Amino acid sequence: MALFSRTLTNLAQQCKHAHPVKSVRPIVTSARRELDISGIYPPIATPFRADESIDYGKLEENINKWNQIPFRGYVVQGSNGEYAYLTKNERVELVSKVAAMVPKDKLIIAGAGCESTRDTIEMTRLMSQAGAKAVLVVTPCFYKGQMTNEAMIGHFTKKKKNSCHTVPVILYSVPGNTTIDLAPEVIITLSKHPNIVGLKDSGGDVAKLANLVYKTKGNNFQILAGSASFLLPAYTVGCVGGVLGLANVLGHECCKLENLFKKGKMEEAMLLQQRLVGPNVCVTRRFGVPGLKVAMEWFGYYGGPTRSPLQPISKETEEIIRQAFKNNGFL
Amino acid sequence: MALFSRTLTNLAQQCKHAHPVKSVRPIVTSARRELDISGIYPPIATPFRADESIDYGKLEENINKWNQIPFRGYVVQGSNGEYAYLTKNERVELVSKVAAMVPKDKLIIAGAGCESTRDTIEMTRLMSQAGAKAVLVVTPCFYKGQMTNEAMIGHFTKKKKNSCHTVPVILYSVPGNTTIDLAPEVIITLSKHPNIVGLKDSGGDVAKLANLVYKTKGNNFQILAGSASFLLPAYTVGCVGGVLGLANVLGHECCKLENLFKKGKMEEAMLLQQRLVGPNVCVTRRFGVPGLKVAMEWFGYYGGPTRSPLQPISKETEEIIRQAFKNNGFL
Amino acid sequence: MALFSRTLTNLAQQCKHAHPVKSVRPIVTSARRELDISGIYPPIATPFRADESIDYGKLEENINKWNQIPFRGYVVQGSNGEYAYLTKNERVELVSKVAAMVPKDKLIIAGAGCESTRDTIEMTRLMSQAGAKAVLVVTPCFYKGQMTNEAMIGHFTKKKKNSCHTVPVILYSVPGNTTIDLAPEVIITLSKHPNIVGLKDSGGDVAKLANLVYKTKGNNFQILAGSASFLLPAYTVGCVGGVLGLANVLGHECCKLENLFKKGKMEEAMLLQQRLVGPNVCVTRRFGVPGLKVAMEWFGYYGGPTRSPLQPISKETEEIIRQAFKNNGFL
Amino acid sequence: MALFSRTLTNLAQQCKHAHPVKSVRPIVTSARRELDISGIYPPIATPFRADESIDYGKLEENINKWNQIPFRGYVVQGSNGEYAYLTKNERVELVSKVAAMVPKDKLIIAGAGCESTRDTIEMTRLMSQAGAKAVLVVTPCFYKGQMTNEAMIGHFTKKKKNSCHTVPVILYSVPGNTTIDLAPEVIITLSKHPNIVGLKDSGGDVAKLANLVYKTKGNNFQILAGSASFLLPAYTVGCVGGVLGLANVLGHECCKLENLFKKGKMEEAMLLQQRLVGPNVCVTRRFGVPGLKVAMEWFGYYGGPTRSPLQPISKETEEIIRQAFKNNGFL
Repeated sequence: MALFSRTLTNLAQQCKHAHPVKSVRPIVTSARRELDISGIYPPIATPFRADESIDYGKLEENINKWNQIPFRGYVVQGSNGEYAYLTKNERVELVSKVAAMVPKDKLIIAGAGCESTRDTIEMTRLMSQAGAKAVLVVTPCFYKGQMTNEAMIGHFTKKKKNSCHTVPVILYSVPGNTTIDLAPEVIITLSKHPNIVGLKDSGGDVAKLANLVYKTKGNNFQILAGSASFLLPAYTVGCVGGVLGLANVLGHECCKLENLFKKGKMEEAMLLQQRLVGPNVCVTRRFGVPGLKVAMEWFGYYGGPTRSPLQPISKETEEIIRQAFKNNGFL
Repeated sequence: MALFSRTLTNLAQQCKHAHPVKSVRPIVTSARRELDISGIYPPIATPFRADESIDYGKLEENINKWNQIPFRGYVVQGSNGEYAYLTKNERVELVSKVAAMVPKDKLIIAGAGCESTRDTIEMTRLMSQAGAKAVLVVTPCFYKGQMTNEAMIGHFTKKKKNSCHTVPVILYSVPGNTTIDLAPEVIITLSKHPNIVGLKDSGGDVAKLANLVYKTKGNNFQILAGSASFLLPAYTVGCVGGVLGLANVLGHECCKLENLFKKGKMEEAMLLQQRLVGPNVCVTRRFGVPGLKVAMEWFGYYGGPTRSPLQPISKETEEIIRQAFKNNGFL
Repeated sequence: MALFSRTLTNLAQQCKHAHPVKSVRPIVTSARRELDISGIYPPIATPFRADESIDYGKLEENINKWNQIPFRGYVVQGSNGEYAYLTKNERVELVSKVAAMVPKDKLIIAGAGCESTRDTIEMTRLMSQAGAKAVLVVTPCFYKGQMTNEAMIGHFTKKKKNSCHTVPVILYSVPGNTTIDLAPEVIITLSKHPNIVGLKDSGGDVAKLANLVYKTKGNNFQILAGSASFLLPAYTVGCVGGVLGLANVLGHECCKLENLFKKGKMEEAMLLQQRLVGPNVCVTRRFGVPGLKVAMEWFGYYGGPTRSPLQPISKETEEIIRQAFKNNGFL
Repeated sequence: MALFSRTLTNLAQQCKHAHPVKSVRPIVTSARRELDISGIYPPIATPFRADESIDYGKLEENINKWNQIPFRGYVVQGSNGEYAYLTKNERVELVSKVAAMVPKDKLIIAGAGCESTRDTIEMTRLMSQAGAKAVLVVTPCFYKGQMTNEAMIGHFTKKKKNSCHTVPVILYSVPGNTTIDLAPEVIITLSKHPNIVGLKDSGGDVAKLANLVYKTKGNNFQILAGSASFLLPAYTVGCVGGVLGLANVLGHECCKLENLFKKGKMEEAMLLQQRLVGPNVCVTRRFGVPGLKVAMEWFGYYGGPTRSPLQPISKETEEIIRQAFKNNGFL
């Protein structure tokens, strides 16, 4: 299999125990052209118990609530999912559990990124088997000085021989965590790859996004905003949706913003966008997952603790977050 | 005088050696409320001869061409004006020359920022006398570790006793040059000051701009995008115009983008915005003023040399810039 | 047990299935006071075959050569060991294999850091069982905005109930890879912890090191320089040794510098230090592990490929590295 | 004249109105080979009155005290001199006043850096006339993206025709303020220039300094540490002295550290170096010139206010600084 390989021979023969060939072939050969990833997704938080074990009961309660919102699907193991703190087994199990909890028409995108290319290829295979319809692959980042454009292209295009399990890949650039801002020239090159269908960009540089939309026209390459703070600007330069931490909390409002833009109601959209920034900053960049989880509680979701080294937020910080929601009319 | 109280009539009479309170009050309460800075401005390049002296003849030729474009006015001594390389006398003279070259209905905004507060106050006074209708005041930046929020508020609000010459002030945040990104809380505080009318933000973080528009509603505070790379996104979150280096070269196109947005032609606006990023990056962040000046030549303007230590661009670089304009349909 | 807990009672009772109590007790109760980590260590490179699997045969050949050099011991899974690309099982196996290859008097320090605290505690336990006499624990870094001083202190001091396997801990700050520079106040606090014996600091800020040596006097806290580029300056402010990527290649020279300093031969030491910087920069910051591995070949070691996404270096780069060694008299 | 030109013929003929030829010739032709800049210098603070005007009386009192300390000389208008806030006239006047206050055997080094090359050349000429025996020229920094190695070499080597007034030049790299860390290859190239005698480096990367000493051997190029935090490490890699903000306050101690190193008393030197870091950080990087000026008062010097936008430090901050001096035995 490949992180993103395509035409495979003798699929039926090689991959007996795994993915049904019929469903693979169209993805590999043409599904990449067909998979529409447009829409709004929450990168779902992973609920933990006090002892830091995963609480699947609470997860199901959250998902049942989210299923009432017109999301396109779910991102499992974006940065908000604390995937960096999950073991390999937990990562795969979590995706298979979510796959069982959501309706068939919801797209499940699983974070499959690892530091090494070989682990990423393996994780992609496992996520596909677990039910993911696409994978989100973050830029590796540990050896920052050596993460050249060549290294990135190598990482995202390396194949494993005789592989057959594969799913479309979405590139993931999140410089706030990785300090790596995937370069436009790399993205443009990768946009031509048959198995790479899009990009989630959390950097917030909408000029970069505008340019990328323009330079990848014709490649059926789809770009998702990585934060609710710039969703409307991203739409206005050609992005097709968003993976929004805030959607864990204010899912309806995020979908409403999408809707207002599509209907051309620019003034209402502008005002809603302006209002979303304050709360969004609190539950993402400023206070991170601990901030997100405390806000989830206010809106009827289970937030719960994070895994260490993330720390619980203080009462003072909680009050700052609450004010940010109140001041902008969400509480 | 103040860094920011405002234009007065009967200066000779009023300003003998002190500030007449009566004359200040109405100005403070109304002109600041009335100055509309919305629209598109080129931060004009300063033309030099081979010996690095200012060539006012070439400047006039450029301005005569720019006067044919529906700009709201001119920014004299934004970063593209190489103001950091002009002497105090040159800075003031340049503004007075430009004031004599442009029609009365064009707003002249002069860069008046200096590292020290006292020099900035003095420069503001001189710029006002030279014909500027507003001043752009960049964040000081040399002692980076000490440029706290308190220092910024102090800088932008310090008054000089008994002053009377003043003009409205526009804050200028340009982290690419200064590494100082003026904090939202500072801007919100300053937006209430009677003489501070707006902000030019070149940082490109439209989420910040969206939030600022929302949090300064009611203060008649006006925000201008500092780069053509994100003009449309800035409009969609509530900005009122832009000071665009690219407008030195593609002035009509920049004004067209403004117009498309205002008329609600979002698809055309989106495409034009996408096309502008590539060329804009070349004449701003990537190759700076030397890149801008070489491109000016292609569009019938005088570009000429920069002052040292800025270096002439190589033939290879010139070709890169040319391709960026060609590829996106501007050459 | 604990990442770094200490006096445990009833060890024999609590930890039946694991580590023999006899060997644990001295470490837990007093070894922290006694464990002398001073000296020079290579953070050994991990040899791979062309298919990226670990080549233990080549590892043994390298170690046999290194055993001829008066190193204090070996760091297994410092950044140069590509530990970020090894699976959990590989990490533990590698340490146990190395433990079997080196003489008893060589100290084995194993990198046990993981992003989550719980994984780090578990890895510490496994490394201890595998034969490590101390562990090096890197700062977690993924959620950069939340990696506060509190988070760091929490990470390095969290205990697991009823644990018994433990080894002394060495803090590891490597901002070049993690962008986290462990704060002096955190280090000073942690230096009082009974199980934290020292710090490997790769940041290169010797002023910070001087201050830390002064502020931790009396805590028996030992600081190791994390790069040959500043080994002598580090010694002159009170550090006790170094974990030096360059020691994979120029082990004798690194030990010679230690010796010159100790004998007070400052002029010779100065010259050797000056000569080491150029080659060292090439095999660390500038060209990373791929640069290190190519240089290893010139000195009779097996370098071999790196794991992807690290890329092989080009012929041009290889030549630059060779010149750096030649120009300074090492080839 | 040149920023750094050298052998000039017919000086008497060319430069009638200016600097006496006799004093220039030796500097121009051979002094660069002879000027020994080794030793300790305070980059003197500029004393202001409450109205921010320069207080020359207080300056003289300070200098009279400093004259009792075995400094090699004075740096007038390093970063601690708030030169960025002085007008052109003030800058020159200040140097001429200091020249009149100090004994002939003290070397006066004047900060002559400006953003533009032409202003820097002019300022160098004026500083020479005012009595400076060498000038310190900071890297220009405003257009950060364009401050390439070529731009730096151009800036530091550009000549003005028919010039005759010149003084040796010391390069000044202070990335904490400018964000520009002058590249080793630029420094090595410039070290061959006949009029460039040395470097003041405030970056604190002693590995860089070690390498530079090695690579410039034979060019009679002299490197000064730019901070007391790393003076001893700098000496141990071949630097010849320091320009130390802390020397405004603890001049005797700084000179003592120099002396201990020269006499080979490494243990005493180590301890003194360790003790100096804490107080030094407070009066430089952490609290800047306002911190330095408040500490000057405790040691019998006039500190006084800074110019705005620098702000007075709070009582809480003052207490932090005082404790830093107390804890390390200096108060």
